Amino acid sequence: YREEQAQRGKLYVSYLLVVKWFFALLIGICTGLAAVFINIAVENFAGWKFSVTFDIIQKSYVAGFVVYVLINLVLVYSSVYIITQFAPAAAGSGIPEIKGYLNGVDIHGILLFRTLIGKIFGSIGSVGGGLALGKEGPLVHTGACIASLLGQVTCGCAAGVAAAFRAPVGGVLFALEEVTSWWRSQLMWRVFFTSAVVAVVVRAAMGWCKSGKCGHFGSGGFIIWDISDGQEDYSFAELLPMAIIGVIGGLLGALFNQLTLYITTWRRNYLHKKGNRVKIIEACLLSFLTSAISFGLPLLRKCTPCPDSDLASGIECPRPPGMYGNYVNIDAIVILSIFQFFCSKDKEYNDLATIFFNTQDDAIRNLFSAKTINEYSSQSLLTFLVMFYALAVITFGTAVPAGQFVPGIMIGSTYGRLVGMFVVKYYRKLNIEEGTYALLGAASFLGGSMRMTVSLCVIMVEISNNLKFLPLIMLVLLISKAVGDAFNEGIYEEQAQLRGIPLLESKPKYEMRNMTAKEACGSGRVISFPRVVKVSDVVSILRSNKHNGFPVIDHTRSGEPLVIGLVLRSHLLVILQSKVDFQHTPLPSDPRGAGRSIRHDSGEFAKPVSSKGICIDDIHLSSDDLEMYIDLAPFLNPSPYIVPEDMSLTKVYNLFRQLGLRHLFVVPRPSRVLGLITRKDLLIEDKENVNTLELQSTSVRIR
Amino acid sequence: YREEQAQRGKLYVSYLLVVKWFFALLIGICTGLAAVFINIAVENFAGWKFSVTFDIIQKSYVAGFVVYVLINLVLVYSSVYIITQFAPAAAGSGIPEIKGYLNGVDIHGILLFRTLIGKIFGSIGSVGGGLALGKEGPLVHTGACIASLLGQVTCGCAAGVAAAFRAPVGGVLFALEEVTSWWRSQLMWRVFFTSAVVAVVVRAAMGWCKSGKCGHFGSGGFIIWDISDGQEDYSFAELLPMAIIGVIGGLLGALFNQLTLYITTWRRNYLHKKGNRVKIIEACLLSFLTSAISFGLPLLRKCTPCPDSDLASGIECPRPPGMYGNYVNIDAIVILSIFQFFCSKDKEYNDLATIFFNTQDDAIRNLFSAKTINEYSSQSLLTFLVMFYALAVITFGTAVPAGQFVPGIMIGSTYGRLVGMFVVKYYRKLNIEEGTYALLGAASFLGGSMRMTVSLCVIMVEISNNLKFLPLIMLVLLISKAVGDAFNEGIYEEQAQLRGIPLLESKPKYEMRNMTAKEACGSGRVISFPRVVKVSDVVSILRSNKHNGFPVIDHTRSGEPLVIGLVLRSHLLVILQSKVDFQHTPLPSDPRGAGRSIRHDSGEFAKPVSSKGICIDDIHLSSDDLEMYIDLAPFLNPSPYIVPEDMSLTKVYNLFRQLGLRHLFVVPRPSRVLGLITRKDLLIEDKENVNTLELQSTSVRIR
Repeated sequence: YREEQAQRGKLYVSYLLVVKWFFALLIGICTGLAAVFINIAVENFAGWKFSVTFDIIQKSYVAGFVVYVLINLVLVYSSVYIITQFAPAAAGSGIPEIKGYLNGVDIHGILLFRTLIGKIFGSIGSVGGGLALGKEGPLVHTGACIASLLGQVTCGCAAGVAAAFRAPVGGVLFALEEVTSWWRSQLMWRVFFTSAVVAVVVRAAMGWCKSGKCGHFGSGGFIIWDISDGQEDYSFAELLPMAIIGVIGGLLGALFNQLTLYITTWRRNYLHKKGNRVKIIEACLLSFLTSAISFGLPLLRKCTPCPDSDLASGIECPRPPGMYGNYVNIDAIVILSIFQFFCSKDKEYNDLATIFFNTQDDAIRNLFSAKTINEYSSQSLLTFLVMFYALAVITFGTAVPAGQFVPGIMIGSTYGRLVGMFVVKYYRKLNIEEGTYALLGAASFLGGSMRMTVSLCVIMVEISNNLKFLPLIMLVLLISKAVGDAFNEGIYEEQAQLRGIPLLESKPKYEMRNMTAKEACGSGRVISFPRVVKVSDVVSILRSNKHNGFPVIDHTRSGEPLVIGLVLRSHLLVILQSKVDFQHTPLPSDPRGAGRSIRHDSGEFAKPVSSKGICIDDIHLSSDDLEMYIDLAPFLNPSPYIVPEDMSLTKVYNLFRQLGLRHLFVVPRPSRVLGLITRKDLLIEDKENVNTLELQSTSVRIR
Repeated sequence: YREEQAQRGKLYVSYLLVVKWFFALLIGICTGLAAVFINIAVENFAGWKFSVTFDIIQKSYVAGFVVYVLINLVLVYSSVYIITQFAPAAAGSGIPEIKGYLNGVDIHGILLFRTLIGKIFGSIGSVGGGLALGKEGPLVHTGACIASLLGQVTCGCAAGVAAAFRAPVGGVLFALEEVTSWWRSQLMWRVFFTSAVVAVVVRAAMGWCKSGKCGHFGSGGFIIWDISDGQEDYSFAELLPMAIIGVIGGLLGALFNQLTLYITTWRRNYLHKKGNRVKIIEACLLSFLTSAISFGLPLLRKCTPCPDSDLASGIECPRPPGMYGNYVNIDAIVILSIFQFFCSKDKEYNDLATIFFNTQDDAIRNLFSAKTINEYSSQSLLTFLVMFYALAVITFGTAVPAGQFVPGIMIGSTYGRLVGMFVVKYYRKLNIEEGTYALLGAASFLGGSMRMTVSLCVIMVEISNNLKFLPLIMLVLLISKAVGDAFNEGIYEEQAQLRGIPLLESKPKYEMRNMTAKEACGSGRVISFPRVVKVSDVVSILRSNKHNGFPVIDHTRSGEPLVIGLVLRSHLLVILQSKVDFQHTPLPSDPRGAGRSIRHDSGEFAKPVSSKGICIDDIHLSSDDLEMYIDLAPFLNPSPYIVPEDMSLTKVYNLFRQLGLRHLFVVPRPSRVLGLITRKDLLIEDKENVNTLELQSTSVRIR
């Protein structure tokens, strides 16, 4: 009989496996499509905005300014309206929340379908509206939401990163390094698959867009800032300025984290308490401020003459806004007007305008551009750095979907290019490219702010499409992360802390060494259930506290108490709601009773109920119901992990982190040892099974 | 007092941290230098060998053959002599052993200094001698040995891969995916640092070699088969042949694993039992066979005329052996002779000779070469594939250091190029490059044999220096791994199993679900120690069994037994050997006794004693000693991980794997729960500490 059950179980496992892989495929396709949709929409809005503005500038600067501000306002308003009225959980980047979710903490509403919709449309508005934020964080959240509908959040994160940066390997590593605290190679493989699917989908969509079917505008918005034609080699003397970039990145990144922490705290405590109206006004004010700065500041700069357009040397005027990628079918007249924007003569350009009054993707492309020495003046870059840094800080925490990747790259590449300019001046060599320094600067700022290592490194390599700088990027990241770590924690950790998400760091604090498990679990009395419990008791216990798990204690025949398992609050709530498991007698039901637990579809327990929003107060029970009993035995987790009372807290911490636990029983020291398990025990047992179950081995191995 | 101790502890922790990072730096530098040394040595030997042979061929083919065979024989003999006489643990690739070590199993002698030396010099001989094996696996082992001297094996693995392939990110991922079963982001960061250091060291050495200081020959042997000038784009119709490559890779890889498994089993059971002489003869025979095939087979092929050397189209005669990289200062006369090798006229070449009679690095370079359609005939490729596959299989398991990466790439790229040729014929498009298919073939064979995913993908991208094919490589790897997994396990797992290394797979077997912890630990009686134990008892217990850990049981005042911890066999051996902890009374010593455990330097316990080779039979104790007692309390692990007797074995398995455990106590079900720990407990406790210990926080954060 047991054999048969095992056989059936195996079929079921194979079925589950196929379903999981199919879902992984589906997640990849959907995330890829969502990314394509967001990108095309943003590109279309931004392109349309710039072309209309340019048209009007021909006649009047003031009218152009008004139109520009208005379009931005409308886009941002639509975004903040969607967020405040429809999907409040879609604000921000969403990465701290997803980190929390995968770390084992469930946040209400973070992965709902409504959040997904809000995120997609909200980020179109906020990014298209020109605010100092990016669409990459929201894309990760979007991927996670899609994946959550199918139950595989890790895959979704990776898919989001893969779609946002067209960096499939970076996506896998991001999911593994940054968001999950535990890790299995089986999971890794599926995540890898999803990322590959995303890459194929995005590529297919871009091929389709090349034929001009994506509406009026192209698809250049997919981040790939190709610098593969950049600097060929680097000398050891350049390592010093690169180290300096790393230090600057660490300092500015840590400062950014600290400032955004203050700003967000202030927002939480004062501003956002006053309701949605304040949030909307705030976002609109920010939009106006951003528009004014990006339109006004370039006016104060003098124009620079284009270098002689010597085609052989590859030097040409920097691309004006809109020239590259984001709108391709633009009229020849408009192109001409762009050249003259802010500048009186032909063959001149405004260097500040090429980075400020532009879509962020194109601005970064200009900053990364190789073979364009002296394209920017240091004053322009410095102005941009200060203003954009300030804008990015105050925009952070507004009630719109907002990523920090692209702003980080903007800030980093600006000071990177600044350092690069000094290096060019000082070393007087021709083979040094400022674009390379811009790339390193971007890596350093992201490293200093987000404190990722391997995944960020791979993402930077993938978006710059150049493997040559890999060791340089690694070194810069190491320095900036070390410098940043000396001051505070990573931006996601700080934001998660602020939102009360209990993320477990990768390393236990030193103080834990001197503490035992018993000290950690506090002095509160443990509330436990007997095996068969009265409904009214369940209700009163659930009402009286907020615990999520309760030990269940039975008695042996000799009357000694015995812990038989752990029951979750969420499961109790499902039982109370469905009522089918109530019984009249306080006696344990027959465990052999056919289909005892089949009454509940396993899907009902599959998801934490709190995210479905069931609450103890929502469940209405009649007084008859309250007099009945529940046998908890079928709903138990029969063997939760346990630790002896005097185990060092460091060890407990590792258990939690490595296994992704949520509850752990602290028990008295055992009085005897029944056996010792070593690795060999686990393997020998394995081989015996292989021998006896040879016929079934194919189905096992497919796993 | 406790505060003070904590303070001192923190200083100590900071000190340890600095030491660890310094060691990581040192490991990076040493591994980089070792890799440079091996490469230069191999290149010099191989280059010298080919140039001498060519010189003689001018006069007589027979004499050339004899010289060629003799040089190979001498090199291989030196390698096998070193291995058999001096460092038997250095045979093979060493990766299964290191996997085992990091998985928690200690194999005798695998990480000694003597093994390191044997590995370095042995692999120079075996690779220089032209056998069908690579130097990459041994380099990983070399890195691990160097790191083991400093106590950080994971770093060493990564450094080895980074040095072998010049793939720093690939190295990090290899260490994480393939060799370690558990994973912490702290560790990841240090591994990342080591890899970056290796990359810098190797690059510095190569820059130094460019100036011609590395002896007579250059340094082209560092694997980077740059195909960045290859195919620009791919069409969706090409996905089908690419999928076919994946399937072929899976099948051939699985076959390779199976064949090598049989061969190795046969070698173990029959051949190698007969002693070292047989091993030496075997290696010499193989060397002769390989030399004969690689020299003889090209003679049977007709010569192909070079395509018109139209410089504009970039088509030129394939590089003859030695033209590229491996020996640069070669005389003009020798170059001429190479062109004529095996061929009568100028402007002709022998396609089989370019891959067979060549160093492996250059052969792969030829196979990957782009813009060389019709360079090889399909007969040549097929011949090479069959012969080299056979050679690789029979060479596997010889008593020389041997890696499987480069042979795998050779085999894979051959059939990849074959498929590519058919695709070119069938699709009749000009923008399809056979070199691309060769790369995908290499990826597919490695995927089918080694079953890695992310790390292999990154390594392939890094060695081909082309990011465009990333999604294609991912898809090919997914297919080949899936196909291979349907037949058997990865080559490292199979070899580890064969050698009796109990590797824990990433996923527990399905049967474990129905088993409990108690069933797994077998029926044997648990041997436990009392707290204070007589020396003679210790000796007799240690002699009577092979267990590595023993529970220690004390009694409470009321007489109830209480498990107070776990003592390791290795620690007991150290205690017995040093004798300083013996005492005359059977009473527990005063735990406050100053410096009770200071008598032992912590370093003595730091390393498992078994690898130092102490054995219970080596320890001589007088009869007086045997009458004394030991108080085990200071040497205990006071709180080993425990599981209740009826916990599902799946959970136990996860505990072992995720935490890298070696021992686990199975205890009776607890009778009461003292407390419940949740994530919040771990965090709230954290915050309290931050508040009270604000002054010390800087030193904490540096960690």
